[in-house]
Amino acid sequence: MAERKKLYEGKAKILYATEDPNVLVSYFKDDATAFNAQKRGTIVNKGKINNAVSTHLFQLLEAEGIPTHWLQSPNEREMWVKPVTIVPLEVVVRNLAAGSLCRQTGLGLGTALTPPLVEFYYKKDELGDPLLTRDRIRAMAIASDEIVHQLDTLARRINQILIDFFNGCSITLVDFKLEFGTLTDGTLVLADEISPDTCRLWNQNETDIARRVMDKDRFRQDLGDVESGYQQVLDRILAHTN
Amino acid sequence: MAERKKLYEGKAKILYATEDPNVLVSYFKDDATAFNAQKRGTIVNKGKINNAVSTHLFQLLEAEGIPTHWLQSPNEREMWVKPVTIVPLEVVVRNLAAGSLCRQTGLGLGTALTPPLVEFYYKKDELGDPLLTRDRIRAMAIASDEIVHQLDTLARRINQILIDFFNGCSITLVDFKLEFGTLTDGTLVLADEISPDTCRLWNQNETDIARRVMDKDRFRQDLGDVESGYQQVLDRILAHTN
Repeated sequence: MAERKKLYEGKAKILYATEDPNVLVSYFKDDATAFNAQKRGTIVNKGKINNAVSTHLFQLLEAEGIPTHWLQSPNEREMWVKPVTIVPLEVVVRNLAAGSLCRQTGLGLGTALTPPLVEFYYKKDELGDPLLTRDRIRAMAIASDEIVHQLDTLARRINQILIDFFNGCSITLVDFKLEFGTLTDGTLVLADEISPDTCRLWNQNETDIARRVMDKDRFRQDLGDVESGYQQVLDRILAHTN
Repeated sequence: MAERKKLYEGKAKILYATEDPNVLVSYFKDDATAFNAQKRGTIVNKGKINNAVSTHLFQLLEAEGIPTHWLQSPNEREMWVKPVTIVPLEVVVRNLAAGSLCRQTGLGLGTALTPPLVEFYYKKDELGDPLLTRDRIRAMAIASDEIVHQLDTLARRINQILIDFFNGCSITLVDFKLEFGTLTDGTLVLADEISPDTCRLWNQNETDIARRVMDKDRFRQDLGDVESGYQQVLDRILAHTN
């Protein structure tokens, strides 16, 4: 492809148009941000690792019948995806309490959540991506009750597939964030990425609270060895898959 | 009563024990706080006005069959109340969008909410009284689904009674915060206070956004004439009642 039109540059990825209106390119950067972009940095090779992890997980989910925006991953930095209209909700699935849930509720880090929590946050940087209740979603007319119900159901199915897969890698899936979009025919598909940027992943072979972290919390909390945490997630996925 | 044991001093009231174990005294102070006590001040006569307003509203609600903790109001500063175990949830009813709802959702000030929103916040100063979803309440085991359902139902009944009453005073009930407690036999009763400290009230005879405010937003937003806003609420209630 020759000239590419940049459609959108986010914190971790750039979206380009291609000559084919049915194909967009998602380019994975090494830029890292946290706490609503108040903390910024670079994680070497993050883009490559996240593209590889996301590619594996999207393929896994597609094989399990979950529709995603993934088309192919032609090189280390790029994922080709279907164009979607993004639903302006971040869907967070929580199996164990961590992060803002602990800060806002007083629940202890690692408290088991049974059934898992499926939470919705308003995808709006200017407002700090606030937590939304289902009643607020209705009042804001962001998404219909039917769409919210579908998102909840899809998120729980994805969670079960990912829990099982990561357990096979000796990794605990603590929580993760999903984004969804609709195709032109209205079909809801999983979009964005699934990676150590968007999941909390704990190494089951480590008991130490700082050492077990394999995800963006290494960056958020200045735990060091951020890249090797991410790399180890990918290595385990590859070892488990092959 | 001679010696009184102070049980608890809050931001706006002090709770004392009496010789009678079935009677506590709630003493209304003039101290005002806002934004989780980051802003502090005094509103002259606020305690007297809030006690008088709350007394009228509790009597109105009791007459409509809503159980409250109110027993009697023997003087301007004191309300005698039944001892309750406070449910650690602040129940906020919203008829029009205002305050944190606007900041967190982008909804415009005064947007009509139909049906009204009934929201739950964790009554926990250290955590900044965060918004809770029903799923978080369940995960935290703060209150059973049955109690949450009862709180929702009671809050909506109280809202309808108060909307009608304030309309008769040419005041729009924008939103308000309720607290509930349980008696020793488990009965859920309305507790705390209902006053210009805990309600947003707009003067229907004013169209100017700043001038119409009759409640604690005059203090929060430095609109001036805080005491006269509160006093006018009481005057209209008294005029409407007599």
